[in-house]
Amino acid sequence: MIVAVKPDADTRSVERALIGRGLWIDRFEAEGRTFFSIAPHSSAADREALLAIPGVESVAIKKEPHPRVRAQAPSISIRGTKIGADCPPVVIAGPCSVESELQIFALAERLSAHGVELLRGGAFKPRTSPYAFQGHGAAALRWLRSAADAHRMSVVTEVMGAEEAELVAEVADVLQIGSRNMHNYALLKRVAALGRPILLKRGMAATIDEWLAAGEYCLLHGAEYVIFCERGVRGFDPSTRNLLDLGAVALLSGVLGLPVIVDPSHAVGRRDLIPRLAAAALSAGAAGLMIEAHDDPGSALSDGPQALSTEEVRTIVAMTFGSAVLTDKEHRHG
Amino acid sequence: MIVAVKPDADTRSVERALIGRGLWIDRFEAEGRTFFSIAPHSSAADREALLAIPGVESVAIKKEPHPRVRAQAPSISIRGTKIGADCPPVVIAGPCSVESELQIFALAERLSAHGVELLRGGAFKPRTSPYAFQGHGAAALRWLRSAADAHRMSVVTEVMGAEEAELVAEVADVLQIGSRNMHNYALLKRVAALGRPILLKRGMAATIDEWLAAGEYCLLHGAEYVIFCERGVRGFDPSTRNLLDLGAVALLSGVLGLPVIVDPSHAVGRRDLIPRLAAAALSAGAAGLMIEAHDDPGSALSDGPQALSTEEVRTIVAMTFGSAVLTDKEHRHG
Amino acid sequence: MIVAVKPDADTRSVERALIGRGLWIDRFEAEGRTFFSIAPHSSAADREALLAIPGVESVAIKKEPHPRVRAQAPSISIRGTKIGADCPPVVIAGPCSVESELQIFALAERLSAHGVELLRGGAFKPRTSPYAFQGHGAAALRWLRSAADAHRMSVVTEVMGAEEAELVAEVADVLQIGSRNMHNYALLKRVAALGRPILLKRGMAATIDEWLAAGEYCLLHGAEYVIFCERGVRGFDPSTRNLLDLGAVALLSGVLGLPVIVDPSHAVGRRDLIPRLAAAALSAGAAGLMIEAHDDPGSALSDGPQALSTEEVRTIVAMTFGSAVLTDKEHRHG
Amino acid sequence: MIVAVKPDADTRSVERALIGRGLWIDRFEAEGRTFFSIAPHSSAADREALLAIPGVESVAIKKEPHPRVRAQAPSISIRGTKIGADCPPVVIAGPCSVESELQIFALAERLSAHGVELLRGGAFKPRTSPYAFQGHGAAALRWLRSAADAHRMSVVTEVMGAEEAELVAEVADVLQIGSRNMHNYALLKRVAALGRPILLKRGMAATIDEWLAAGEYCLLHGAEYVIFCERGVRGFDPSTRNLLDLGAVALLSGVLGLPVIVDPSHAVGRRDLIPRLAAAALSAGAAGLMIEAHDDPGSALSDGPQALSTEEVRTIVAMTFGSAVLTDKEHRHG
Repeated sequence: MIVAVKPDADTRSVERALIGRGLWIDRFEAEGRTFFSIAPHSSAADREALLAIPGVESVAIKKEPHPRVRAQAPSISIRGTKIGADCPPVVIAGPCSVESELQIFALAERLSAHGVELLRGGAFKPRTSPYAFQGHGAAALRWLRSAADAHRMSVVTEVMGAEEAELVAEVADVLQIGSRNMHNYALLKRVAALGRPILLKRGMAATIDEWLAAGEYCLLHGAEYVIFCERGVRGFDPSTRNLLDLGAVALLSGVLGLPVIVDPSHAVGRRDLIPRLAAAALSAGAAGLMIEAHDDPGSALSDGPQALSTEEVRTIVAMTFGSAVLTDKEHRHG
Repeated sequence: MIVAVKPDADTRSVERALIGRGLWIDRFEAEGRTFFSIAPHSSAADREALLAIPGVESVAIKKEPHPRVRAQAPSISIRGTKIGADCPPVVIAGPCSVESELQIFALAERLSAHGVELLRGGAFKPRTSPYAFQGHGAAALRWLRSAADAHRMSVVTEVMGAEEAELVAEVADVLQIGSRNMHNYALLKRVAALGRPILLKRGMAATIDEWLAAGEYCLLHGAEYVIFCERGVRGFDPSTRNLLDLGAVALLSGVLGLPVIVDPSHAVGRRDLIPRLAAAALSAGAAGLMIEAHDDPGSALSDGPQALSTEEVRTIVAMTFGSAVLTDKEHRHG
Repeated sequence: MIVAVKPDADTRSVERALIGRGLWIDRFEAEGRTFFSIAPHSSAADREALLAIPGVESVAIKKEPHPRVRAQAPSISIRGTKIGADCPPVVIAGPCSVESELQIFALAERLSAHGVELLRGGAFKPRTSPYAFQGHGAAALRWLRSAADAHRMSVVTEVMGAEEAELVAEVADVLQIGSRNMHNYALLKRVAALGRPILLKRGMAATIDEWLAAGEYCLLHGAEYVIFCERGVRGFDPSTRNLLDLGAVALLSGVLGLPVIVDPSHAVGRRDLIPRLAAAALSAGAAGLMIEAHDDPGSALSDGPQALSTEEVRTIVAMTFGSAVLTDKEHRHG
Repeated sequence: MIVAVKPDADTRSVERALIGRGLWIDRFEAEGRTFFSIAPHSSAADREALLAIPGVESVAIKKEPHPRVRAQAPSISIRGTKIGADCPPVVIAGPCSVESELQIFALAERLSAHGVELLRGGAFKPRTSPYAFQGHGAAALRWLRSAADAHRMSVVTEVMGAEEAELVAEVADVLQIGSRNMHNYALLKRVAALGRPILLKRGMAATIDEWLAAGEYCLLHGAEYVIFCERGVRGFDPSTRNLLDLGAVALLSGVLGLPVIVDPSHAVGRRDLIPRLAAAALSAGAAGLMIEAHDDPGSALSDGPQALSTEEVRTIVAMTFGSAVLTDKEHRHG
């Protein structure tokens, strides 16, 4: 925003009033006129309230860049499970990649028993090295759907390329766009056109504005709903892998009223820190958690070191029940 | 660590066992020998446990770079208030800079009434611009001490330069080293030599290893104790100012058993997100919170937009009482 | 690499020999055995040379992760213009987006007259905002090809999505993968399968290793050749937009012998710094430059502020002629 | 800057004119009024020129935050060697730390013979680990001065702490402030008060604005002159250690007319890339280079892997003679 001060007003008292509202300002002068620009990291400000400050002549604003994202409902119901900034938090759990029919059925059974309502699992795996395991594809999708159906769970899985979008949409309740594809506008359009809810992971160095813009793409091109997912951004210190940005989570959930799922598994990459970061994410306002689970991490075909056992996932689920906004599990299905 | 595999062992089974323990490994081969290096972002690993894996010949380790930090007691008592990874969390609150005797007395009274036991306030203010307010110096120190004494509070304040170290030590219970001075080894030595507890803020782009090394400097040169303080690192997105690194907090408190205070005020810079990030910090394992407070942020001489009112600080203190490890306020003084 | 020292050797003399070769090492000890690990930012080291150091028992290495990239020829000829680490540098120039037939013909004529041999221009434009101009698509591709043919230029243009890959391949001599798609493995495979040379832009926060891995994907899946393109990585200071990583350029061209084009337009974003950074890129070993050009930047439909006039491009071309490795323009066609 | 458009003017034509000048703008609207804010990464803009655009009502500016830095002369003469944005580039070379009298005398002799006019060397060494070699202190200073005097060289050395400032000032021609101390305002004031020229290294994550502000501190508190020194900023990829920011060098030297020395040794850390980055720095407009030199890097007490031999320094000096702005060595002493 740009605040223009009336020519004869007391600029210092306008300045105090702006700072008093939690705004970081810069002051600009021209031929007896004073303007204040408001930095993007300021507290949320209401234009009408600023106009009411004595001495303020006008408050100019930028065109809202993400109108559809801002107009979204605060929550969505996926097969009866509500996900949103105003709902009890959910847990999405499952293996990094679906490795066999047996594996995903066994995991689904245990995860469901522990209270997990959304099952995740990769069918097409994007790996940095072209020589690493790339996923079981279409077969994995079918196993995932059957395993979920057997326990009345919903399926969240990633679409890696436009050519597999329809295939994935046949089985998935929520279509995931991965971090590496957040800026892949061709894929966003194609997946959005399927008219389904999208779980949009933040790009590894995407600003919040770029992330919201990707969400706007999805909604503009037909997506039913966009759930955001923070999974850590690229930092300078390898000792905690990625940097989980809970400030962004607090901003999206607390100020913009948007649903944000947090993926602590990819964020921190090490099993022993996941429970603490999961708890922190819930405190920051996350609408839910996405957790990698495996029953034998040592033999996982991908990302074994960050997978939790189903027992550990149970502890994570218990955390969400302890969360302030939650009353009981049934409430979610109400 | 480097794990050497016995020449005739099954390298794949050693590999699985390492991954199964949450370790990210790289594999190296030489003339029929196999070695695994373990990445720094791996889960904590015990050398004896790795040696017990069938097929492992030896596990080589680096010399512990921070022996004094690792040997520190888990907590310290400051005038009866215990601070540590295993204690109920504390709140350190006060103005960015001490602006007048009246101001600091009024704030101390209200903060104390709300349960704050440690009073902070800047006497010598390091500001990026040389033309900004630089603090009231020695007078501010005296006001701070008297205000704290009037309410049986402890004083935490920053030492900016070697020449003022003794002066600060006369009034402060805990000597703070600011972010901008974490790498200032001359100052670390000088302050450490005073033999007092130090609150060591993390440098704005310091790795965890550099931060611990700075703590080691302090202990080696005579500091009584080092309390670490995370205040956000430099990120690429201005819309949340700094990036609060709660992964580092979880690592220091949960794995290394070190006390870490979190400063959400500097981390996020905007008042409306501070409560959520304070809650997240406690969930991640913070030993306490450091909060900027002011009764009229609009007229603050520095950092007004991020200051909370004393009423808002009361809510933050209530959070720490709700924290799992806390039983009651008296317990702390026990 | 991991260097194992013989049990009875003088470990200090091995250490000196390693440091003396420009290697940053870490020392690990186990039951009387000493190992050194070599950091990735070390000078290039030859395994045989390290084995020849007295006291070294073995030198273990990781499997080469990018064998096809490392085996690539040092240069490629595109319609007679050679591009490579060992060739005179080339200039690829043109508008951010092709705005009209007239525009691209006029630009091609002038750029060709100034010595530019490769014409670039966007047909499908990925824009952060879904409401910004998205390109003229198929028509733009035809105009681009005709304009290039009229002046015997080659065409470099971006493939944004799998569905347009064949269409682009009909007109382009080099298929560009943009920064935002470097991690889009589905697109890499699809474009690679066309069997053509690829210009692979580095992702905005991609490590060098991830960049090379993306190149390996392309070669594994059928690409004829991969030319790398550095365009600035995401940094923490908005005042120079992106951070041009010329260390990466020096590494790829000088140590790995790979062709790297530098795009200073996107890196720095401001017209007045482009010539200096173009010169610096050539000094660092760039195989060429990619420059945005427009004849009326104020009316450009995208990225006007960073477009150079054709006159300014002439100066850039002159720079490449002044470069040490260049003898004459004809030589390139030899 | 903020550009206010006249109420009845054609805002689109004002917009075009701004973009046409290389400016990145944001548009703000209020009750029929239009304002444009100009982003900091825009090309340099002259206020008068913007006021002359038809339709512009006023152009508001921020108070110049660094008036003394902006008012500095473009160059300074150190014992006859001119250093500045408009002078032939200089080379400052020497060991990371002064290890013995013999060492520094031998190095000074060879470096001088190769054309180096400024000798560097650390007397008090700030090391991340408190257990690493910390320098020979006062003795090293005397050796450094004598060695320089024997060959009519100037001395550049770092002041690590306020207590040693006078001592260093007795021998040094230029007082260096290291990266880790750029934000150490107490030290800046103390060193500045000595009234000598300062070489101010950029903090490892300092924005350009913070770097200039530190320079302003120095000039405000008495420094004779400030030479800036870029040494790489912290990035996310360990494989090239730090990220040399030549965009910042081009900005300071080419737009602001300030002298910037580049230290490629610390930036890239690996010997084999230093010559290419040195050449790139000169092309970007560096006023000189700072190079670590050692005659037996394997036995260096600090930073051996990045030290060049004196022979290699000769090649670097030759580069500066080949630079466009240089005529001959004598010219510098003219």
